[in-house]
Amino acid sequence: MNAIDHQYMQLALQQAALGQNSASPNPCVGCVLVKDEQVVGAGFSQPAGGGVVQGAPGAHAEVMALSVAGDLARGATAYVTLEPCSHHGRTPPCADALVKAGIVRVVAALTDPNPLVAGQGLARLAAAGIAVESGVLHATALEHHKGFISRMLRSRPWLTVKMGASLDGRTALANGQSQWITGPAARSDVQKLRARSCAMLTGIGTVLADDPQLTVREFAVSRQPLRVVVDSQLRTPVNAKLFNQAGVLIVCAQDDELKRHALETAGAEVLILADTHGRVDLTALLKELGCRGCNQVTVEAGGVLVGALLQAGLVDEMLLYQAPVIIGDTAKGIATLDLSDLNHKLQARVLERRQIGDDLRFTLRFTDAGEFYAE
Amino acid sequence: MNAIDHQYMQLALQQAALGQNSASPNPCVGCVLVKDEQVVGAGFSQPAGGGVVQGAPGAHAEVMALSVAGDLARGATAYVTLEPCSHHGRTPPCADALVKAGIVRVVAALTDPNPLVAGQGLARLAAAGIAVESGVLHATALEHHKGFISRMLRSRPWLTVKMGASLDGRTALANGQSQWITGPAARSDVQKLRARSCAMLTGIGTVLADDPQLTVREFAVSRQPLRVVVDSQLRTPVNAKLFNQAGVLIVCAQDDELKRHALETAGAEVLILADTHGRVDLTALLKELGCRGCNQVTVEAGGVLVGALLQAGLVDEMLLYQAPVIIGDTAKGIATLDLSDLNHKLQARVLERRQIGDDLRFTLRFTDAGEFYAE
Repeated sequence: MNAIDHQYMQLALQQAALGQNSASPNPCVGCVLVKDEQVVGAGFSQPAGGGVVQGAPGAHAEVMALSVAGDLARGATAYVTLEPCSHHGRTPPCADALVKAGIVRVVAALTDPNPLVAGQGLARLAAAGIAVESGVLHATALEHHKGFISRMLRSRPWLTVKMGASLDGRTALANGQSQWITGPAARSDVQKLRARSCAMLTGIGTVLADDPQLTVREFAVSRQPLRVVVDSQLRTPVNAKLFNQAGVLIVCAQDDELKRHALETAGAEVLILADTHGRVDLTALLKELGCRGCNQVTVEAGGVLVGALLQAGLVDEMLLYQAPVIIGDTAKGIATLDLSDLNHKLQARVLERRQIGDDLRFTLRFTDAGEFYAE
Repeated sequence: MNAIDHQYMQLALQQAALGQNSASPNPCVGCVLVKDEQVVGAGFSQPAGGGVVQGAPGAHAEVMALSVAGDLARGATAYVTLEPCSHHGRTPPCADALVKAGIVRVVAALTDPNPLVAGQGLARLAAAGIAVESGVLHATALEHHKGFISRMLRSRPWLTVKMGASLDGRTALANGQSQWITGPAARSDVQKLRARSCAMLTGIGTVLADDPQLTVREFAVSRQPLRVVVDSQLRTPVNAKLFNQAGVLIVCAQDDELKRHALETAGAEVLILADTHGRVDLTALLKELGCRGCNQVTVEAGGVLVGALLQAGLVDEMLLYQAPVIIGDTAKGIATLDLSDLNHKLQARVLERRQIGDDLRFTLRFTDAGEFYAE
């Protein structure tokens, strides 16, 4: 590993970031091709269903970069944020494409998280006489690919809870008034988070109180997130604003044919996933979202759902937007937990604090991707 | 105002800071004497009652600096953080001492906040042929002297609320467990805050739940803060740890001779200060503490007293130590307020955020000293 490799891998990660709003269910990989200290090609994973990003639907980063480089690829080094694939999926194996193009060295940040194929791409390249290396900017790439890796290794998405609150941890008044605790910059920032998310998860309480759309509206996107409502008793109103856009999944704990048909007519898919207490089984729900190819799921909900997710150990990350105001005890809180011992408090790691307008954004981690993925 | 003046005034402010734990009820003034670009003397306000700091009891900063400089003071410039006094108080006027010592120029950061004497010290100096100037590092000096200035101009101390809380704004579990939400570095930091305080204010709830001493124990101090308990019904136990040290004031809303005598026997002074609702009159209490010479009062209390102080508009500043943990909704909050409209939320200005161990310390302002003091 040397400084030059780091520098080009950083470029590959920048490429990867360009696909973060659109690549799923594929990982959003970046690839840079370098020959004689010149970048001769670069690309990132294309949306599986096509969309606003140029290139063939679902084309992988390596293929995009090779198509840019053309003949210049011969003799080049390929920097990729994830090990090139060796199997026929939606597209032919990238390892073969790299061999065919005459690439002489491949540097990967991470090997494939899928234990069934991990290392096979690099092995295939090595067998063809290509120098291979992995682990360059491992930690940064792990952070970038944490959603895909979580789905591969834990069979569930990376779960981020977004919260807007006052300094004293209040998200809404007791009477439900909540819209303007954090400022416009924070609300804009949340739009970017929604754009990166495969699904947005909320609870029936929020649907009834705020009637949110949970879509990206401030800028164009190639896909809107699936909107998922935890709604044990199918109380979602058929005229909820969620239905302004297709892609609503309502998860209940008990079927009610009349209500279900009404919601299905309104455009929702209804799923019954009950736990043994007659509530929605949140662990099963996340597994289901993983099966549907969701890498990143973001929660915008009240304290009841957030508390339940926290207590089930399902929250990996919390983005807390904190406004410099005091609202007082009777207002609603961030998370409904009922601790009887402070030793059971939920300890977070503060990954970052950043000023967003007048508010402060905490990036809090309850999980590290390194816990479930080790090179 | 030039860069040299700023530099020496900065030194005078550093001197002033040396007296911040001990000078009250006097302002903790700093003075630096400069001749031929050399510092020939420096000093700060001495404790009125003597104590661990060297020098005559209650000696002013100017007198201390002059005694260091001796004959070198002749022809020097004096930098003082507050206008030299012109009246006989506990000590003779500093203006006269400066004239007598042959000082040729006096630079003050602030004129005396007391409108009855403001400008008289400088006028006396000017009348003696000394060049005078004021307003150098005005804002910094105002920040340093805000307690004294508050007492002079508002007849009450500067009030700081200290709070230790989780990210979701919780200070204690519903069962009262609270001791270890923030870390050891934060608790050490609070000791410095107590040392700077003339009085510590708490409520009966905290006394009953935590039995705090509210004294400085990690390092030597020349005086401990007066400990003040808001205790409407005189429920403070006579064996409370507060009584380990002399200087406890218990403020009730209604007399009860039996309880009062027991508390007085335990060492407390008991004061009856009721408002028209039969609760302790907090505004009157702060006025009383001002009369007793308190410049800085710090609150360590639960949400009930803090909420009442906030709603009465008496809180100037909040130091919020925030631990990176989530405790949940049923735990106790920072402030008991009952807002029915978010427009009534209490807006704070974030003056500073600083990492203290694992915790984050917010310095929040509800008041600016500039609001009650303008040059």
